[in-house]
Amino acid sequence: MNINQRLSDLREVMRREHLAAFIFPSTDPHQSEYVADHWKGREFISGFNGSAGTAVVTLTSAALWTDSRYFLAAEEQLKGTEYQLMRLKIEGTPTIAEWIGRECEAGVEVGIDGWCSSANEVKDLIADLRKQGGITLRTNLDPLRLIWPNRPAIPENPVEIYPLQYAGEAVHDKISRIRQALREQHADGMLMAALDDIAWTLNLRGSDVHCNPVFVSYLLISTKDVTLYINKVKLSPEVLAYLKAEGVGVAPYEEVNKGLKDYFEYNILLDPDEINYTLYKSVIREIVEEESPVKRMKTVKNGREIAGFRSAMLRDGIAMVKFLKWLSEYSENSEKSGLSGLSELSVSDKLESFRSEQPLYRGLSFDTIAGYQAHGAIVHYEATPESDIPLHPEGFLLLDSGAQYLDGTTDITRTIALGPLTEEQKRVYTLVLKGHIQIELCKFPSGASGTQLDILAREALWRDGLNYLHGTGHGVGAYLNVHEGPHQIRMEWKPAPLVAGMTVTDEPGIYLTGKFGVRIENTLLVTPYKETEFGQFLQFESLTLCPIDKSPILVDLLLPEELAWLNAYHQRVFDTLSPHLSSEESSWLRSACAPL
Amino acid sequence: MNINQRLSDLREVMRREHLAAFIFPSTDPHQSEYVADHWKGREFISGFNGSAGTAVVTLTSAALWTDSRYFLAAEEQLKGTEYQLMRLKIEGTPTIAEWIGRECEAGVEVGIDGWCSSANEVKDLIADLRKQGGITLRTNLDPLRLIWPNRPAIPENPVEIYPLQYAGEAVHDKISRIRQALREQHADGMLMAALDDIAWTLNLRGSDVHCNPVFVSYLLISTKDVTLYINKVKLSPEVLAYLKAEGVGVAPYEEVNKGLKDYFEYNILLDPDEINYTLYKSVIREIVEEESPVKRMKTVKNGREIAGFRSAMLRDGIAMVKFLKWLSEYSENSEKSGLSGLSELSVSDKLESFRSEQPLYRGLSFDTIAGYQAHGAIVHYEATPESDIPLHPEGFLLLDSGAQYLDGTTDITRTIALGPLTEEQKRVYTLVLKGHIQIELCKFPSGASGTQLDILAREALWRDGLNYLHGTGHGVGAYLNVHEGPHQIRMEWKPAPLVAGMTVTDEPGIYLTGKFGVRIENTLLVTPYKETEFGQFLQFESLTLCPIDKSPILVDLLLPEELAWLNAYHQRVFDTLSPHLSSEESSWLRSACAPL
Repeated sequence: MNINQRLSDLREVMRREHLAAFIFPSTDPHQSEYVADHWKGREFISGFNGSAGTAVVTLTSAALWTDSRYFLAAEEQLKGTEYQLMRLKIEGTPTIAEWIGRECEAGVEVGIDGWCSSANEVKDLIADLRKQGGITLRTNLDPLRLIWPNRPAIPENPVEIYPLQYAGEAVHDKISRIRQALREQHADGMLMAALDDIAWTLNLRGSDVHCNPVFVSYLLISTKDVTLYINKVKLSPEVLAYLKAEGVGVAPYEEVNKGLKDYFEYNILLDPDEINYTLYKSVIREIVEEESPVKRMKTVKNGREIAGFRSAMLRDGIAMVKFLKWLSEYSENSEKSGLSGLSELSVSDKLESFRSEQPLYRGLSFDTIAGYQAHGAIVHYEATPESDIPLHPEGFLLLDSGAQYLDGTTDITRTIALGPLTEEQKRVYTLVLKGHIQIELCKFPSGASGTQLDILAREALWRDGLNYLHGTGHGVGAYLNVHEGPHQIRMEWKPAPLVAGMTVTDEPGIYLTGKFGVRIENTLLVTPYKETEFGQFLQFESLTLCPIDKSPILVDLLLPEELAWLNAYHQRVFDTLSPHLSSEESSWLRSACAPL
Repeated sequence: MNINQRLSDLREVMRREHLAAFIFPSTDPHQSEYVADHWKGREFISGFNGSAGTAVVTLTSAALWTDSRYFLAAEEQLKGTEYQLMRLKIEGTPTIAEWIGRECEAGVEVGIDGWCSSANEVKDLIADLRKQGGITLRTNLDPLRLIWPNRPAIPENPVEIYPLQYAGEAVHDKISRIRQALREQHADGMLMAALDDIAWTLNLRGSDVHCNPVFVSYLLISTKDVTLYINKVKLSPEVLAYLKAEGVGVAPYEEVNKGLKDYFEYNILLDPDEINYTLYKSVIREIVEEESPVKRMKTVKNGREIAGFRSAMLRDGIAMVKFLKWLSEYSENSEKSGLSGLSELSVSDKLESFRSEQPLYRGLSFDTIAGYQAHGAIVHYEATPESDIPLHPEGFLLLDSGAQYLDGTTDITRTIALGPLTEEQKRVYTLVLKGHIQIELCKFPSGASGTQLDILAREALWRDGLNYLHGTGHGVGAYLNVHEGPHQIRMEWKPAPLVAGMTVTDEPGIYLTGKFGVRIENTLLVTPYKETEFGQFLQFESLTLCPIDKSPILVDLLLPEELAWLNAYHQRVFDTLSPHLSSEESSWLRSACAPL
C-alpha cells in the first residue's frame, strides 16, 4: 500500500479543482459504523483501518482524527506516512475545522463527499469552517472515483428472508406502526437510510457488510407506497415474490434521489443524523442559532465572588445555628404543652429576624418554605395566614430558606425532627441523606454535566421505588437570582458542564402526599480534585455551614463513607462557626455536631 | 378575587377575536422564573401563584399545568374555579396542545402573547398544535391589556451600582470577554434579555423582582456599542455617569424592537431559549426535522426476539465455557513452558471454532479483540499476523468477542488472568468490576436515559483519577448489528430512554498504555422492576451467561451488595449452563462459579 502515491494523486485532483483540503470520514451514504469495502475511502487514503476516524489532506500536510479506542492502533498504522494523529476528546486536540484553519489560508475552499456524511455533520462542519476565516465547503466531488484504481464495487450479495419465528412481528405490522409514528410526528412519509433499520423493517437480512447482516439499500415510505431502492441482482425470485406480497415495490439503488424528488405528499421525515447531506440538501434550507455565552460566564465565580460566598455562608450559618438552637429549646421546653404558640409562619419570621441581624443582609433570596408534616410534602409550599398550622412536638418540619447578602446568595434546606418520628420518616430521611452525601462525595472529570451526576442522589431512593420529580441541584447567583443556569444537576439533559468555580445546590427530597416531606440541601462549590493521565478531575466543597439533624438517621443504612462524610462535615461546621458564637450557642452546636 | 368574572371578560375578547383558546405562561419578556407583578397574568386569570405553571382557557373549559413542586398548592388554590389541574411529568397528563386538540375543533386558532414566551417554546407549541388537526397560533394579542383593571405597571425601582470589591471583574473586562465569545460563535453582536445576565454584565443590581436583585431591561451589544434599553427614571445621575464611563448607552425600554431592526452588523446572536418569540420572529425564519421513529422501535425487542436472545446467549455461554476451560487447562499445563504455542490469533481462532460448533451459528458479530497485556490497552485492537504476540503464564488477556446466531447477536468481554498479576492489575480489575456490577444492580424509573446511569459504572474509577473515554454500553441488534442505537449508556447525552425489552451492554474498562487493559462486559436486558406511586421502575437482567474471572478480585474493595451480586450471578450461570455440559466441563464451571 503506497500512501504517498495516493496522496500525490489526490493532490493533483485537488489542485485542478482548486481545493485546499479534502476530508474523508469513515462512513457510507447510510451512516453505517462498519462499511462495505467500496466506501473504505478513509482507509484507502490513510492506511488506518479502524471503524471510526476522519482523514484530512491539505496540499502540504495530512492528519487523522480518531477516538481513544484506536489511539494505539492508529499510531502503529500511520507510521511512515505524512499523517499526524489527532486524538479526539484529549485536551489540546484541534477540531478538524481548527486544524484546516491553521493549515490553510483564509477564504479557501475545501472538499468532502456529501454522500458520505450525515446532514448534521456537514452542517456543523460548514459552520465551523466559516469561523476559520470564512473557509467554504464543496460537497459534490468524490475524488476517489478518479484516484482509486480497482475500487471494490458496491456489494451485490443475495438478500435472505428472516423467518417470522425469529423476527416476531410481520412486515405489514411494522410498517403500520411506522406510519402511525409518522402521523404523530406530523409527517406523511419518510426516507430510511440506516441499513439495519431497513433490514429490521422488512424482516430481511444480507451480508454486504462484514459481521453485520445488512444489505445496501434505501427505503422510501409514503402513505400509500413502500419502495426499496436496491440493486435487483441481490433479490432472488423468492425474495421478489415476498416483497411483492408485502406490498413493497423495488427500484434501482441509484434512483433514490429521483424517488425523493418525486415525493409529492405532505412533509417527508428526514432524520438529519441519518440522511446524508447530498440527499438532505435536495429538499431542505437552514439557519443558525446559539446559546448565549453570558449564561455560562456568569456561573463561574471569580475569586472575589467565591470569597464573598464564603463570608455570606459563614454569617448565614451563624443565623441558622441561632435559629435551630432557639427552635430546639422551644421544642424541649414545650414537649408537654405542644409547642404552643409556634406555627409555620412564626418560625419563618423568627428565622428571618436572625438573618436580618447579620451584616450585609439585603433580604430573602426566596420566600421561606416552612412546611410542617403533611405541608412538607407540598414541594414549594408557602405558608399564608390561611394555611398556617401550629407545630407539635413530633414529626418533621421542612425548612427551605435563603438570603441575599451584598457579598453572596444563600440557599439551604434542613428537615428538622420536632419530636418522635415514624419508622417510615426515619427511613425516608436516611435514604434522602444518603443521596445528598453521594453528591457531596462524588468525583468527576472536568466536562461532566450535572445530568451525569444526578443518579448518585437518587439510586438509594430508586431501589425503594421512591423518586422526586424536581431537579437535584441548581446554580446560585452571586448576590443575584437564587436559581441560575445553565448548569444543573437533574434527570433531564443539561449539557452545560460543571466547571471549577461554579456553585450548585445538592437537594434531593421525598414527598409523601398527606404525610410528610424530607429535603436536605447544601450549596456546593465545584473545586479541583486531582489531575491524572486521564485529565483534570473535580469535586464539591460544601459552602453551606449548618448541622444536619442527626436524630432521624438510621445509621445502619449509611455506608461507612457516608457516615465518615457526615462526621467530618459536622466537625468543619463546628470548627468554622464556633469562634463566632456565644459559649451557650457553641455548646449547643458542639452537641449538634457530635460524631455519630 | 373573582376568577369567574375574569374568565368571562377574557372569553368576550376571545369571541370577538375568533380565538378558541388562550394560553397564559408564567414568565415575562425576559424568560424570568420569578416575575414582576405586571407580568403575573397567569395568576390573574387562574388564581394560582406558583413560580411555574401555564393556564389555558377555552370558551367552555380551563386547565392549569404545573410541576410536582406545586401539585398540592395548586389543588388548593384552584378549588372552586373551573380549572382542571394538569400534573406535568405524571403519566396520562395531556400536553397543552393535546388538551386543546381535545377541547377545540380542528382548524381553529388559539392565542398566546408572543412577548411572554421564548422563541423555542412558541415554535414547539406551533408544531404541536399543527398536529392537532391543524390548529394555528396567533401571537400578537395580549388580552390582559383589555381585561385587567388596575394592572400593576412595569416596575421603576432605582438601579444600584454593585461594588467591584464584590463583583470582582470590571464591566469593560466582562464585555470584552463577551465580545470574544461572540466572535468564537461567529457573531458580531447579541441581544441579552435575561435580567440576571444583564445585572451581572453591567455590575448593577435592582429590586424589580421580589427576592431577585435585578432590573427590567434589555442589553444590545455590537462590535462598537453597548446599549441598555431601560426606563430612564430608574437611573440616578450617579448610575447614568457610571454607565457613560463604561461606554454603555441608554435608550427607552420600549425601543428594543427598533434597536434590533436597526442592527446592521453581521450575524446577531439570539438565544432562542432566552429571546421572546415576538423579538425573535422579527429576524428569523425556520424549518422542521425529527429523529427517525424506526431507530427506537427496532431496539425494543418483542417476545420472539427476547426468546431468541436467551437461546443464543445460552449457546454462546456454552461455547465460552468450553473455551475458558480449554484456556485454563492449557495455562495450567504450561505454567513452566510459557503457554508455548498460544498467541492472540490462535486463541481467537479457537474461540471462533467453539462458537461455530453451536447450532444456528452464522458468523462473528465483530472481529474478535484478543489483546494480551499491553495490547489489551489498545481498545479496539485486532491481532494481525504482524502484530500477533505469544501468551505467557502471567498478566491479563482481554477478550472482547461475539457472534451472530440466527436467533440473536452476542457481545461479551472477559479479562482473563493467565497467571500472576501486579497489585495495580488487581486494583484496576476490581474497580472496573465494581462499576460493571453497579450497572447490573441499578434500578431506575421508566424514561431514564443511559446518560443518567453512566456514572454508576465510573464513580469508583473517578475516585482513583481513572477514566475510560468510550461508552459504557450500547444496544445490540436481534441478528443485526452488534452496535444499535439510539439508546446508549455513556457520558455524552443520549436522550433515548431505556425501555423494557431493550438490550444494552455493560462494559466499563480501563486502559493503561504500555501496560494492560481491563474490560468486563455482559449484554443486559431491560426488564420491569416495580411500580409505585412514583411510577414504573426498571432494572437489568444479564443475558450473557459466562463466569467472570474471580482470581484478580481484591474482595475488600467490593461492597457487600457487589459481592452478593457476583455470587448470585455465578450461581445462575452454573445452574443454567451445567445441564448442557459434559461432566468435566460442568465440574470446571462449578469451580469457576464457586462463591467468593
